[in-house]
Amino acid sequence: MSDNSQAVLDHLRSIIGADLEQTNHLIREHLDSEVELIPTLGTHLIESGGKRLRPILTLLTSRMFGYQGTTHAKLAAVIEFIHTATLLHDDVVDKSNTRRGQATANSMWGNKAPVLVGDFLFSRSFQMLVEHGDLKVLEIVANTCAIISEGEVMQLVASNDLSTDERKYLEVVSSKTASLFAAASRIGGVVNGRSPAEVERLGHYGLQLGIAYQVVDDALDYSTTQEKLGKTIGDDFQEGKITLPVIHAYHNGSEEERQFWRDALEQGIQPEGSLARAIALVRQRGSLQYAMDRAREFVVAAKQALESLPPSPEKEALVLLADFSVDRSY
Amino acid sequence: MSDNSQAVLDHLRSIIGADLEQTNHLIREHLDSEVELIPTLGTHLIESGGKRLRPILTLLTSRMFGYQGTTHAKLAAVIEFIHTATLLHDDVVDKSNTRRGQATANSMWGNKAPVLVGDFLFSRSFQMLVEHGDLKVLEIVANTCAIISEGEVMQLVASNDLSTDERKYLEVVSSKTASLFAAASRIGGVVNGRSPAEVERLGHYGLQLGIAYQVVDDALDYSTTQEKLGKTIGDDFQEGKITLPVIHAYHNGSEEERQFWRDALEQGIQPEGSLARAIALVRQRGSLQYAMDRAREFVVAAKQALESLPPSPEKEALVLLADFSVDRSY
Repeated sequence: MSDNSQAVLDHLRSIIGADLEQTNHLIREHLDSEVELIPTLGTHLIESGGKRLRPILTLLTSRMFGYQGTTHAKLAAVIEFIHTATLLHDDVVDKSNTRRGQATANSMWGNKAPVLVGDFLFSRSFQMLVEHGDLKVLEIVANTCAIISEGEVMQLVASNDLSTDERKYLEVVSSKTASLFAAASRIGGVVNGRSPAEVERLGHYGLQLGIAYQVVDDALDYSTTQEKLGKTIGDDFQEGKITLPVIHAYHNGSEEERQFWRDALEQGIQPEGSLARAIALVRQRGSLQYAMDRAREFVVAAKQALESLPPSPEKEALVLLADFSVDRSY
Repeated sequence: MSDNSQAVLDHLRSIIGADLEQTNHLIREHLDSEVELIPTLGTHLIESGGKRLRPILTLLTSRMFGYQGTTHAKLAAVIEFIHTATLLHDDVVDKSNTRRGQATANSMWGNKAPVLVGDFLFSRSFQMLVEHGDLKVLEIVANTCAIISEGEVMQLVASNDLSTDERKYLEVVSSKTASLFAAASRIGGVVNGRSPAEVERLGHYGLQLGIAYQVVDDALDYSTTQEKLGKTIGDDFQEGKITLPVIHAYHNGSEEERQFWRDALEQGIQPEGSLARAIALVRQRGSLQYAMDRAREFVVAAKQALESLPPSPEKEALVLLADFSVDRSY
């Protein structure tokens, strides 16, 4: 972790550290089931060093309007559960073997258990939301879950298909990733009974932040700096995912380069050295830079969405988080 | 389909035919998504000749107390969506290739799409429940989804393990199958604002019926009569599922027979002729008969749960359905 990342996280902890601890406590508590494999597998993923970015959004947006209750921590836990469930199902889907440098659930437990434990986490989330009893929050989460699954299916249909353009890519990213950032942010407005316009602004912040975050993630998958930090790269390439760096490199490449991309991503022809060539092309064509520039534009939009909201330490932290989403090491 | 089954379905149609049509209409309507693969895959499964047994329970239990509204059809559609989602995830899990004699979703679309479309159906169900706006119904469905996933994980852990006894088997069956029958039945009481005691009776009816239904299903997987009707049998055997006929045959078998079961189900050693031998043993040891007798006991309990409820054509139909659940051809 870079010094900068550490500073951001330390700052967050100073503002909402107690809330975050409460959220982690609720996560552990609600992972409980008499069926042992559920807490075992759930804990494996949830404790594996995720940054809790999404629940942090719920905590910050709740506190920024002076929320004095305690149920926001439960809603933050729900957001992390939904995120974890989608990871479990996404791992099954992508046949990926590592995530955050650890073995993924399905490389350790096969395909069966992660699907079912993901279902448990979805269900447990809705149980917690029913307990909370706010139909508005239930509506946000149910709608978001539908959008996420639509985004995942869209991504599936678009994979191995280089006719996917930037517009389509951003549609997928908005649905499968950014919609949960948006929901996490909107919830803070809802629990404070803020106006629909303010809730929308929070949602817009979350959406733009989520897009930036995913675009950076997709860029990092082609970054040798990442590799030097000991992170796995090249997963997207291997799976034939059509991400922004690839779309840019493909459209700006020579006919010979375009043939390389088609062979590698549409046909799955990836002889030794293919990943190295892909990384070199993405760099040569300025595609990594292009993706990072686009991400920064979304960060600007995210911060703009917050402008008219009242000042507070939490709002400052949201701005910091937005900057952090592109300044992660790459 | 036997003449008897046809008579039961005709009778049901005469009572709640219009409701069932409305339910089917709502199912098709809510399967809609701009992501084409979702309605394609969803329709494939939902239109593939399922009996709509679970939504029928919601329709009958709603109407038996004189319900005059129309939202029960929407709740019935939700129940069918949840059922379909669990089938999609169960198929991925079990690597089964046929269901109801048709190709399963995952044999046609791989593992990825069925998981995600299942997630969409879960999410869409909760969207519909939020629209309906009754937290009590939301609670029933959320709790049931959690129980189903726990049951599926329990089954996973118990598979290939002949130390699974009848008690454990019934716990799995209650969770993974019967809990949705119970929920479907309770909802009818809830939408009519009936007393908790009456709702519980409906739930008990559904639970016992669901257990009977699954026990019969598991018995039919070893029935040569089924095979003559053109249905696939032997799936459970091949997957090493520990079902009631097997538990009975194993515990009542000779040491040599027990070794056969251990090899076949725990080790997966199934040379040619294994299924035929399993079927013969299940018959010789009276295990098929035992399972059917047990199922009939659950049917008796299901019908008893209804006794104190006011008489109505719908109540009679529920009794008929209970008998039908064991009188399916075997």
